[in-house]
Amino acid sequence: MPITATAVRLSTASSTFEADFKARLHWSAAADAAIEQRVADILLDVQHRGDAAVLEYTQRFDALNAVTLAELELTQAELKAAFEAIPAVQREALQAAAARVRSYHEAQKKACGESWSYVDADGTLLGQKVTPLDRVGIYVPGGKAAYPSSVLMNAIPAHVAGVGEIIMVVPTPKGEKNALVLAAAYVAGVTRAFTVGGAQAVAALAYGTQTIPKVDKITGPGNAYVAAAKRRVFGTVGIDMIAGPSEILVLADGSTPPDWVAMDLFSQAEHDELAQSILLCPDLAYIELVQQSINRLLPDMPRREIIAKSLNGRGALIHTRDMDEACAISNAIAPEHLEVSSRDPQRWEPLLKHAGAIFLGAYTSESLGDYCAGPNHVLPTSGTARFSSPLGVYDFQKRSSLIEVSEAGAQTLGLIAAELAYGEGLQAHARAAELRLATVPPMRMNP
Amino acid sequence: MPITATAVRLSTASSTFEADFKARLHWSAAADAAIEQRVADILLDVQHRGDAAVLEYTQRFDALNAVTLAELELTQAELKAAFEAIPAVQREALQAAAARVRSYHEAQKKACGESWSYVDADGTLLGQKVTPLDRVGIYVPGGKAAYPSSVLMNAIPAHVAGVGEIIMVVPTPKGEKNALVLAAAYVAGVTRAFTVGGAQAVAALAYGTQTIPKVDKITGPGNAYVAAAKRRVFGTVGIDMIAGPSEILVLADGSTPPDWVAMDLFSQAEHDELAQSILLCPDLAYIELVQQSINRLLPDMPRREIIAKSLNGRGALIHTRDMDEACAISNAIAPEHLEVSSRDPQRWEPLLKHAGAIFLGAYTSESLGDYCAGPNHVLPTSGTARFSSPLGVYDFQKRSSLIEVSEAGAQTLGLIAAELAYGEGLQAHARAAELRLATVPPMRMNP
Repeated sequence: MPITATAVRLSTASSTFEADFKARLHWSAAADAAIEQRVADILLDVQHRGDAAVLEYTQRFDALNAVTLAELELTQAELKAAFEAIPAVQREALQAAAARVRSYHEAQKKACGESWSYVDADGTLLGQKVTPLDRVGIYVPGGKAAYPSSVLMNAIPAHVAGVGEIIMVVPTPKGEKNALVLAAAYVAGVTRAFTVGGAQAVAALAYGTQTIPKVDKITGPGNAYVAAAKRRVFGTVGIDMIAGPSEILVLADGSTPPDWVAMDLFSQAEHDELAQSILLCPDLAYIELVQQSINRLLPDMPRREIIAKSLNGRGALIHTRDMDEACAISNAIAPEHLEVSSRDPQRWEPLLKHAGAIFLGAYTSESLGDYCAGPNHVLPTSGTARFSSPLGVYDFQKRSSLIEVSEAGAQTLGLIAAELAYGEGLQAHARAAELRLATVPPMRMNP
Repeated sequence: MPITATAVRLSTASSTFEADFKARLHWSAAADAAIEQRVADILLDVQHRGDAAVLEYTQRFDALNAVTLAELELTQAELKAAFEAIPAVQREALQAAAARVRSYHEAQKKACGESWSYVDADGTLLGQKVTPLDRVGIYVPGGKAAYPSSVLMNAIPAHVAGVGEIIMVVPTPKGEKNALVLAAAYVAGVTRAFTVGGAQAVAALAYGTQTIPKVDKITGPGNAYVAAAKRRVFGTVGIDMIAGPSEILVLADGSTPPDWVAMDLFSQAEHDELAQSILLCPDLAYIELVQQSINRLLPDMPRREIIAKSLNGRGALIHTRDMDEACAISNAIAPEHLEVSSRDPQRWEPLLKHAGAIFLGAYTSESLGDYCAGPNHVLPTSGTARFSSPLGVYDFQKRSSLIEVSEAGAQTLGLIAAELAYGEGLQAHARAAELRLATVPPMRMNP
């Protein structure tokens, strides 16, 4: 039987559209109590036993027979050798991608990562100082989802932010190392790297062990154990978002070659069966052309089975009344990737409020953004673009408020602060302000 | 017996300093399994039963006898009436503080909250669009720790960011409303307010109920139940940090009147017994003067018992070799509040890497910053200033990457992306890039 992908067809004109679509969109990262308990145990064990615990779990889960954790460190020489061993065309592609990602993130730092201050009328200085994190950990998945591009996307913004040390962890089940991942670590300037993974790697980075240094923040995607571990260590260290399945939403006005759009839907669907690809289009005939492209192109795709499962299970081709309605639906979804495949993308862009990344125009395939356009490919999933942002330089910086009150400023501010502090019943707060007044009033003894 | 506060005296010259100090600093938010389970149950219940569940918990925990949740909404008229009923001097202080907080956060938005873009050499547009969150929830504690200033500090940055709706929740045990909190909500421009609290309020904001609208992010401090609930809904909505006990670190060179420094230590200690006040100073005679000020000033403070417990239990007066060493210790602690009580604060400021807020010079008491200097008083605690920032406009905005690749850009970027995508075994990604090339090569069939 030939493989087919028939993404469900919906129409916003249908009376059941909202319910049908809601059912299609539904995804929830139901917490698995068994995973939670297992992860809690691993975290506690690594916290108490350090290296020994990490080593045991790595032996057990990844079948590595190291005697010490130090053996699991990848040296700079090994990273460099990996880089030199890959084909020249891959080396050049990695370097070109890294250069573009770097320059985008440098622009980002310039736009929003600089310290600032001002002096107000009474001579008080107010501002904010922006400083890099000292040390961060990046988690790189091993096995089938080991993406060298993710190494670049996590490490380069950290570098641009000015982070002192970037510690990479990557599981290597049965000792199988991914040469491109090691090469990417070399290109991105990873400081140290260890072949450990899972909750034990997250624990090692969060608490530190004899061999693996404690970091200030952990970024990067991972499986359910890694996600649970990151959630649990949040607060001890910073974390980036907890990623759900990847999604693409294509808003099409019918002007892009249908094969291009079909392939863009595939490029999301090929990630895994839970990935979601949705087309929104006011032109019914065009939707039919995209379905024909899907039918024609699918059989040749090496990952056709995953693509078919994803499109059949979670895809949708949606006929909308017009492009305005398509934009409104997109805002309700807040997709990770949003392609505006229109001859006039700048017309629709201002209507789009919530999305991880917005790809404008027919030539901007999502895959160009995934690898080398420059912006980060670590993006908020599952509607979290309503409140979160792409991974960026700002994730590797933090801010400190700066306040230097002048003697004159202390006179006016002191009266305001004292009034409010007394109102809250915090007399020491009030008194600290009043002691700086030229004439110190008696302390109020209100309750 | 007279009340006394003798903060432990340490010296960096002592061979046991590191261990002694580490023991003093230690604080950990040990997860309480019973609280965790209770909170998980409440969240699930509110998710399923909505209003009815929130109402039941509010009746049970806060002894409110409302029949519908709608009765627990505070109307704008009620907020306005509260504002008009408080003394004029409090009204003016609230408004003056709000105006200063607003102008600081407007400067912050200007410095780092604007969209940007650029066009690269081959005509590709790259940028980032900054947009406000649609709707946020702010949690305001009730009872003894109900601080109107916190209403300003949470709501005003949201307003400045351009958030459409600000929903406040505040528990009112036994129906007791804090007039200043209501007045502050009026001044800050809160959109809607409900007298509910605890995990049930967090659940209502995260999932939405028939009466309380679902928000995109929840900010604001709360007790252990609130903190556990926020941690659990993280991902469904955004949250700000999980706050630990408040801390102040004073670096003193001996030039500030000792009474001022003593009162600054008190103003932290009076929050609660777990609050931490630490003085670092290279001048032993000055440390002695501060202890004398503590002894003399303490008996008159209304909250002297809390202050004494905090200083005796968690305070420290530390003799350092010099100011440089004091700065280094401060960086290791990454304090929430950092006062540089020096005649030359700008000399030390560049050495200070990690702190929530830095208060420079003798006139800048922490309490001025708490109420009205302008910067936010919601700050990272317990060393989390290593990786997180004061609450700010950026917490109420999110970013979307913008990419518009030109036809020319698609030619160069397409080759790079395809190479890397094939390297990762993601052929549809490669193909989506290659289909945009002027000459489309055959698909590579590598595994």
